[in-house]
Amino acid sequence: MFESAELGHAVDKKIYDKEVPALRSALLDAQFDLARDGKFPVILLIGGINGAGKGPTVNVLNAWMDPRLIETNSLGAPSDEEADRPPMWRYWRALPPAGKIGIFFGSWYTEPIADRVYGRTDDSDLERSIEEIERFETMLAAEGALLLKFWFHLSKKAQKKHLKSLEADPENSWRVSESDWEQTKRYDKVVRVSELALRRTSKGHAPWHLVEGSDARYRNLTVGRTLLAALRGRLDGPAENTAASAVPPPLPSVDGRNVIGALDLSLTLSKKSYEKKLAELQGRLNGLSRHKKFQRHALVAAFEGNDAAGKGGSIRRVTGALDARFVRVIPVAAPTDEESLHPYLWRFWRQIPRRGHSVIFDRSWYGRVLVERVENLSPEDDWMRAYGEINDFEEELANYGCIVVKFWLAIDKDEQEARFKAREATGYKQFKLTDDDWRNRDKWDLYVHAVSDMVERTSTSVAPWTLVEANDKHYARIKVLETLCDRIEETF
Amino acid sequence: MFESAELGHAVDKKIYDKEVPALRSALLDAQFDLARDGKFPVILLIGGINGAGKGPTVNVLNAWMDPRLIETNSLGAPSDEEADRPPMWRYWRALPPAGKIGIFFGSWYTEPIADRVYGRTDDSDLERSIEEIERFETMLAAEGALLLKFWFHLSKKAQKKHLKSLEADPENSWRVSESDWEQTKRYDKVVRVSELALRRTSKGHAPWHLVEGSDARYRNLTVGRTLLAALRGRLDGPAENTAASAVPPPLPSVDGRNVIGALDLSLTLSKKSYEKKLAELQGRLNGLSRHKKFQRHALVAAFEGNDAAGKGGSIRRVTGALDARFVRVIPVAAPTDEESLHPYLWRFWRQIPRRGHSVIFDRSWYGRVLVERVENLSPEDDWMRAYGEINDFEEELANYGCIVVKFWLAIDKDEQEARFKAREATGYKQFKLTDDDWRNRDKWDLYVHAVSDMVERTSTSVAPWTLVEANDKHYARIKVLETLCDRIEETF
Repeated sequence: MFESAELGHAVDKKIYDKEVPALRSALLDAQFDLARDGKFPVILLIGGINGAGKGPTVNVLNAWMDPRLIETNSLGAPSDEEADRPPMWRYWRALPPAGKIGIFFGSWYTEPIADRVYGRTDDSDLERSIEEIERFETMLAAEGALLLKFWFHLSKKAQKKHLKSLEADPENSWRVSESDWEQTKRYDKVVRVSELALRRTSKGHAPWHLVEGSDARYRNLTVGRTLLAALRGRLDGPAENTAASAVPPPLPSVDGRNVIGALDLSLTLSKKSYEKKLAELQGRLNGLSRHKKFQRHALVAAFEGNDAAGKGGSIRRVTGALDARFVRVIPVAAPTDEESLHPYLWRFWRQIPRRGHSVIFDRSWYGRVLVERVENLSPEDDWMRAYGEINDFEEELANYGCIVVKFWLAIDKDEQEARFKAREATGYKQFKLTDDDWRNRDKWDLYVHAVSDMVERTSTSVAPWTLVEANDKHYARIKVLETLCDRIEETF
Repeated sequence: MFESAELGHAVDKKIYDKEVPALRSALLDAQFDLARDGKFPVILLIGGINGAGKGPTVNVLNAWMDPRLIETNSLGAPSDEEADRPPMWRYWRALPPAGKIGIFFGSWYTEPIADRVYGRTDDSDLERSIEEIERFETMLAAEGALLLKFWFHLSKKAQKKHLKSLEADPENSWRVSESDWEQTKRYDKVVRVSELALRRTSKGHAPWHLVEGSDARYRNLTVGRTLLAALRGRLDGPAENTAASAVPPPLPSVDGRNVIGALDLSLTLSKKSYEKKLAELQGRLNGLSRHKKFQRHALVAAFEGNDAAGKGGSIRRVTGALDARFVRVIPVAAPTDEESLHPYLWRFWRQIPRRGHSVIFDRSWYGRVLVERVENLSPEDDWMRAYGEINDFEEELANYGCIVVKFWLAIDKDEQEARFKAREATGYKQFKLTDDDWRNRDKWDLYVHAVSDMVERTSTSVAPWTLVEANDKHYARIKVLETLCDRIEETF
């Protein structure tokens, strides 16, 4: 695979000097078009072996283009805020907004490759990481990001030569560390592991570009031209076709049965039992959240449900049992403009708590497959692929020890009408009732269908859905608390 | 001062149970009004001595109100990302948006008081911290924040009694640490230092409320009622008068002279000298940015200037000398909606770099006293007080080792016209020219006046302005690079 990057590629100075001015000006043009139209972000990964000129090339790109429209991220060792969250969190938070170029110097490939090379993981761990990366990049591409991946390569001989010449230069000798020489010893292993990773992740929407690193002019021109072609291709290409997904959306079940219809909404709990159980469960939840073992985990709870199903009231019974200093409730409404410039899940990733903390979402990332589907706010293709993206997201959370608990609070149409009317009648609750709420009722059956599909496709062993019969508020709140306690307990 | 909080305040259970439901419902109403109108943020500080019930009270507030509209911040030891920035950075990033309540459990008072109690600082350090806090809170209030500060107090005897009863309770004994007992030994000093801090920072716009901590019902009711009264007072009060500042804005100098007029815009530099100096200075800047001592500092450079004065070109000559991995260029345009919900300086604070890094602002926080003043985008009162706020901001940056460099790039009217026309004529630069640019020219004299005032009021020893004669681009770029190098060097 790397043969083509060991040919001694080089570019003549005369050719270089002639080409660069036009290339720079074309890159600037493309950057301005990108910024003006602001339709997609560009994500540029710079990976490769030591001494292959990654840093200098990044500097050249910044010098050639307008640095105001570039965000260069040098991701070395994670900060403590990063180390205390799922590994992908730091990359999510560094994703550039639409209209800008984000350069990643050190990326989601760095750790899986280094871990394998240094024997901290085995081949199957590497395979799993690669699969996660594949899904992540597929998501980025589907969300519209232009993804460019460059791998800088040097032959074994060229790498040694490079280090020796650096050492000999008094101005640069400090740059050569023990670990650089250490890495040359592992050259073969680095190449073997990288090749596997590159081969498996070179997809049509995100191919790797190999760059031989020994000649600066060759490197710069290769990266510059590739970037320009990709930018122009996207900027001048046909508008994307986001109308329909490859596979038609699921039809409602032919016998009319579904998980919502199967709920027994007549379940109730007396006020007396409720109060007794509430006190018990809040005490239990409080104890669990203070437990030493909880410090190794985090809690992410998502509340979805029919309008007026009692999400707010349930959430307050949960937060009432937790120390306010370590929990945050996130009401999910329309995205802010900063959020709109990023992939869909970005606004949820940014809320992911540190270990030992809890975050409760009042409505969640499931809006994609509920309101956005039913109200046609997203193209079919977007919400159809969201099921898989959400499963990936939740698995990443779970893998790092996060307890993901999801509730659908279900009421029937009559109960909803009664609650709407009660809200209209009483003071501050009017605030909670909008015309949208009445309108949504007309689409009741569409929502039932959407919820059924959602449960079918996203209720997983790592993050199962809990359907809550919520016609009776007492019953619902107790079921929510019980579920939370059980889920936390079984994780310990 | 604390006598009133050692009276053994307590509230009868019957009275409490009667009052609480109405209070809760009124607090919820106020919260919804706050969220709906979204006009101002509420910042609620909870300070005080150990064992006085701060944590439980925060939990009660969260239980009484809608937790979706509260952000509780428990700020203990700083994370490494926080420790690597000016001390106030962590508080700025935790400020709640307008429409929400932010509770600070641990605040900007915690460290100055603890440092003084434990002898890490002396009285004059404490005085300086208090002055900084005063200015910070004045700014918050002027920006519209509703600031509520509660100090929880216990008598010496009551504190000891509290710790003993905790220790005796097997469920809670783990909560009592060595340092708690340690703190009781320093009770007198804690009280002395806190009293000084409280006395000096209890202002009309941000008074301290003393709360005796021994009785939970008294605490809860006191905080709840105070919060409600403050919320209602602001929500129902007359719209704020932000028309004019107390002091009239400065008049133009009576003899027509000003710092801009005094510039010799005929200064030039030949292409040959330019190229030689450019290479020298970029090398020097590169060396300085890699210097070991730079790791203890950070660079914050702000570029302002007439339209088409060459800010972008100068910035590129600067970034061209720096390692792209450690520098970011922030183009400042209209605030995002998240930024608009915070005090003016928030959007600049969020960009402040870690030590060893650089951030370059293309336009900056000075927009407040330039375009916002000239175009009447801000009330006079807002931009008039901005000079002082900006000086405070830059002093905070400087105090932590940040090198703050500010450039005004000046060209004359003829040169500007020539550049506008050249932009209209060439390809990608058209993007840089808007109708606004032509319109701004009509206000040339108003801008000159605004710039003169800005330089007069914000060119300080910690962050001086550098006026750059920019009719000749070569001359301007060299002056910018030279200034940067000199400023960094003199800091080492």
